[in-house]
Amino acid sequence: MSGKLFIVGLGPGGQEHMTLRARQALQESEVVVGYKTYLRHIQELVKDKEVLASGMTKEMDRAWTAIQAARQGRVTALVSGGDPGIYAMAPVVFELLHDKGIVPGPDGLAVEVVPGVPAVAAAGAFLGAPLSHDFACISLSDRLTPWEVIEKRLLAAAGADFVIALYNPKSKGRDWQLGRALEIIAGHRAAQTPVGVVRAAMRADQSVRLCTLATAASAPVDMATILIIGNSNSFTFQDVMVTPRGYLAKYGSPGGEEVGDE
Amino acid sequence: MSGKLFIVGLGPGGQEHMTLRARQALQESEVVVGYKTYLRHIQELVKDKEVLASGMTKEMDRAWTAIQAARQGRVTALVSGGDPGIYAMAPVVFELLHDKGIVPGPDGLAVEVVPGVPAVAAAGAFLGAPLSHDFACISLSDRLTPWEVIEKRLLAAAGADFVIALYNPKSKGRDWQLGRALEIIAGHRAAQTPVGVVRAAMRADQSVRLCTLATAASAPVDMATILIIGNSNSFTFQDVMVTPRGYLAKYGSPGGEEVGDE
Repeated sequence: MSGKLFIVGLGPGGQEHMTLRARQALQESEVVVGYKTYLRHIQELVKDKEVLASGMTKEMDRAWTAIQAARQGRVTALVSGGDPGIYAMAPVVFELLHDKGIVPGPDGLAVEVVPGVPAVAAAGAFLGAPLSHDFACISLSDRLTPWEVIEKRLLAAAGADFVIALYNPKSKGRDWQLGRALEIIAGHRAAQTPVGVVRAAMRADQSVRLCTLATAASAPVDMATILIIGNSNSFTFQDVMVTPRGYLAKYGSPGGEEVGDE
Repeated sequence: MSGKLFIVGLGPGGQEHMTLRARQALQESEVVVGYKTYLRHIQELVKDKEVLASGMTKEMDRAWTAIQAARQGRVTALVSGGDPGIYAMAPVVFELLHDKGIVPGPDGLAVEVVPGVPAVAAAGAFLGAPLSHDFACISLSDRLTPWEVIEKRLLAAAGADFVIALYNPKSKGRDWQLGRALEIIAGHRAAQTPVGVVRAAMRADQSVRLCTLATAASAPVDMATILIIGNSNSFTFQDVMVTPRGYLAKYGSPGGEEVGDE
């Protein structure tokens, strides 16, 4: 069997943040499967391919469609925004392979996961350097995870002073989870803790807003928004959010006397 | 002042996992500053540049050198492996700008953070899909962070069933932290919990080993190693480590009857 399945991370929106390997994987593929919004970002890269698009909530269908195409001997790319392993398609494929008794690897179906720049790293870059210490990523979608589990993780991460990145803060029919999450975190962190609210980082319509734990609940958010809540040492200056690693505190400032800004 | 400072994430080792934007930033730069090991990976991309290399523990010097070059009006790239915001150079630069009263942005020093594929995403891709649910990144280096803080985070992440990625498990002079960390996690998670031990993912000398919480302490690790400890639902099959998102459990298996492997 000569088929191959690429599970490709496209990175955050714009093609300039896609890796060379992701581009190669698309070029080598005959079939490209993905959520239509992501496919729109890479139209000219896949125009000569068989493109199988589907809606947002069809993850299982997309994964199974891609697996079947690859098993028919065709080189197939299943695309994800960001990184395919972070709240994305890679696990869905492997769950299905396991469930169907399909062996991945040289003796079965060749599968290559092509990592991409995750949305959280793009949001961090856009804000400055908010993730720079230990951090936790938590999805607020209770579609597949009981809300009690999500609350437990929010509490644990807040209590241990992790920088916290919130994925999927809101969606159609999910409007209270973000407020509740910020409430839980505020129980363990100062009201003035900086919060970066980033929408569609590295895309044409990207936007960023610096808030605090006290004001973040009123920021406009959607499914494409990531919130990054600082730890107890995070600070903002100008339009930048920073979580220090501690070099200055430990080693002091290099380069002698202060320099004024020019 | 026409200088600009790029803080560039090179991604995991190999150039094929570098983004187009990272490559552009290097091309546009006159000066490239970085840790010599990373610079070795991009030699031919920077051969016509002024290259300022330094040793691993010289983060402050590297950041300050790059800031000064950019302030002298030169386009400068400060390079990091992986993503520049995740245990890397971006925060060091912003801490220094803040400390020195240098304004980033249009009215001061133009700074662009170019995100990259983080080491943890590369390790995840190499293992399969271990990160796919809520996860926490924790560095075991107590050089800048008190060990009590690290222990508190390990406990919290283990207790709330996060997938846990351990950075900097070991280095010269730090040999007991990993064993202690695994002990703490084992207090909250089954001994058979899968652990992926990945060294230098996506580099020529990459290696992966699947262990369990009971056996991981004896795996060979170094500073270039990341360990990914599964949550209570993570499983392995063949050479793959997977943390399910839960689609199968919720929606059942698509595609009708089981198919045998070919």
